[in-house]
Amino acid sequence: MHELQINVRFGETDALGHINNTSYFIYLEEARVKYFETLGYSMDVKKWHFILASTKCDFLSQGYFNQILTVKTWVSRIGSKSFQLDHEIVCSRTNDLIARGHAIVVYFDFDKQESAVIPDLLREGLSE
Amino acid sequence: MHELQINVRFGETDALGHINNTSYFIYLEEARVKYFETLGYSMDVKKWHFILASTKCDFLSQGYFNQILTVKTWVSRIGSKSFQLDHEIVCSRTNDLIARGHAIVVYFDFDKQESAVIPDLLREGLSE
Amino acid sequence: MHELQINVRFGETDALGHINNTSYFIYLEEARVKYFETLGYSMDVKKWHFILASTKCDFLSQGYFNQILTVKTWVSRIGSKSFQLDHEIVCSRTNDLIARGHAIVVYFDFDKQESAVIPDLLREGLSE
Amino acid sequence: MHELQINVRFGETDALGHINNTSYFIYLEEARVKYFETLGYSMDVKKWHFILASTKCDFLSQGYFNQILTVKTWVSRIGSKSFQLDHEIVCSRTNDLIARGHAIVVYFDFDKQESAVIPDLLREGLSE
Repeated sequence: MHELQINVRFGETDALGHINNTSYFIYLEEARVKYFETLGYSMDVKKWHFILASTKCDFLSQGYFNQILTVKTWVSRIGSKSFQLDHEIVCSRTNDLIARGHAIVVYFDFDKQESAVIPDLLREGLSE
Repeated sequence: MHELQINVRFGETDALGHINNTSYFIYLEEARVKYFETLGYSMDVKKWHFILASTKCDFLSQGYFNQILTVKTWVSRIGSKSFQLDHEIVCSRTNDLIARGHAIVVYFDFDKQESAVIPDLLREGLSE
Repeated sequence: MHELQINVRFGETDALGHINNTSYFIYLEEARVKYFETLGYSMDVKKWHFILASTKCDFLSQGYFNQILTVKTWVSRIGSKSFQLDHEIVCSRTNDLIARGHAIVVYFDFDKQESAVIPDLLREGLSE
Repeated sequence: MHELQINVRFGETDALGHINNTSYFIYLEEARVKYFETLGYSMDVKKWHFILASTKCDFLSQGYFNQILTVKTWVSRIGSKSFQLDHEIVCSRTNDLIARGHAIVVYFDFDKQESAVIPDLLREGLSE
């Protein structure tokens, strides 16, 4: 399981005094980027391999400004050309569950502009 | 069905040249706000009634800077204390489907800090 | 003078209950885009002509969620390769001044990757 | 001088392939928050003491996705009820200057809803 620590920024809150729902998707995207780096992908925009097909977030309890959150990410399904990442966001201090999410990611060949079969090396990395 | 027109802002794109995934959730939130206004809710932060329990978005084709999008919103389920809104985001000019989403919204009593039964008047509005 | 109406989105506020300072720069960017369109620029990312060299905003009174704001934009200086836009953001209803800003914009040749002399047609447009 | 490291997030870029101008103000805000913490302020929204009166950023060279930036912050002026922070944003690896900014911050009494004289302890902290 991959873990990323996030410190909630002030601008990520809203007038209800908590983290705005859209900010959680910033955290999930950041967690995916950091996870992909651990698989050896350089996250160079000109050699991009991943397209987000779908993402979801359940908001279980409120998060707040300056809170330190841990975003946990793991692979829950590997298909032929796509895979699913599941996420949990917890308070790093109390371990309370704040949100739960997932993302369906398509492996993409940007030269051909179409989805492509996940190469073996990536499949091994995702399976670990 | 409620419709809201959105003009994609420059800062809502990312380095892949299209709308960043997190920006779609900005559009869905804006569509909910405008829909709630049609139900007679004033969207005053001090008299807030709605909590977002979950939201999801499927990204079906890419959207771009300065594109005019229509966010369609309708009620797909009404429960005792919550309801679901479904969304479609289409290109206003071509009517091409860009994204599909939903939101589960809980009716909330902020004084008691707990979910509450949807009042009759709201239930009628949601049913229309 | 160019005017753009903005409706403050919920996610543009922060936990202090007002518009977050970073959101004002979203409004100023949007106002520039719309102003450049009136000058005949298509705002196509592949034919981009303008680089932001500097921007500033003074926050004079607080703005709030769902408020309708008018962003006023005008040219205050035209140099050889750059020009300055001044902005005022007022409450559309009361005309109260919320913020005052400016932007220094460089005319840019993206093929050569360097600043370029403002062409006559643009200079005429900016002078009007 | 206070230093904060930032890792540029994907959603902070725009379709020109670089960091969007509005994202720099996110970094400056985050730097202020972290600087105020070093002065002993808890950054609790209910005990807030600082209001941003003005902020500016000069964009000197482009920044990119996943770049590690250092935001340098120091006090450049202390008045009776306000002070100025100056910022430089550099590439952490090459030390190249990316942006330069400043912020004018007003010490504020939220109970009385008015600006207040900077207390001695804060003045000492700012002077260090």
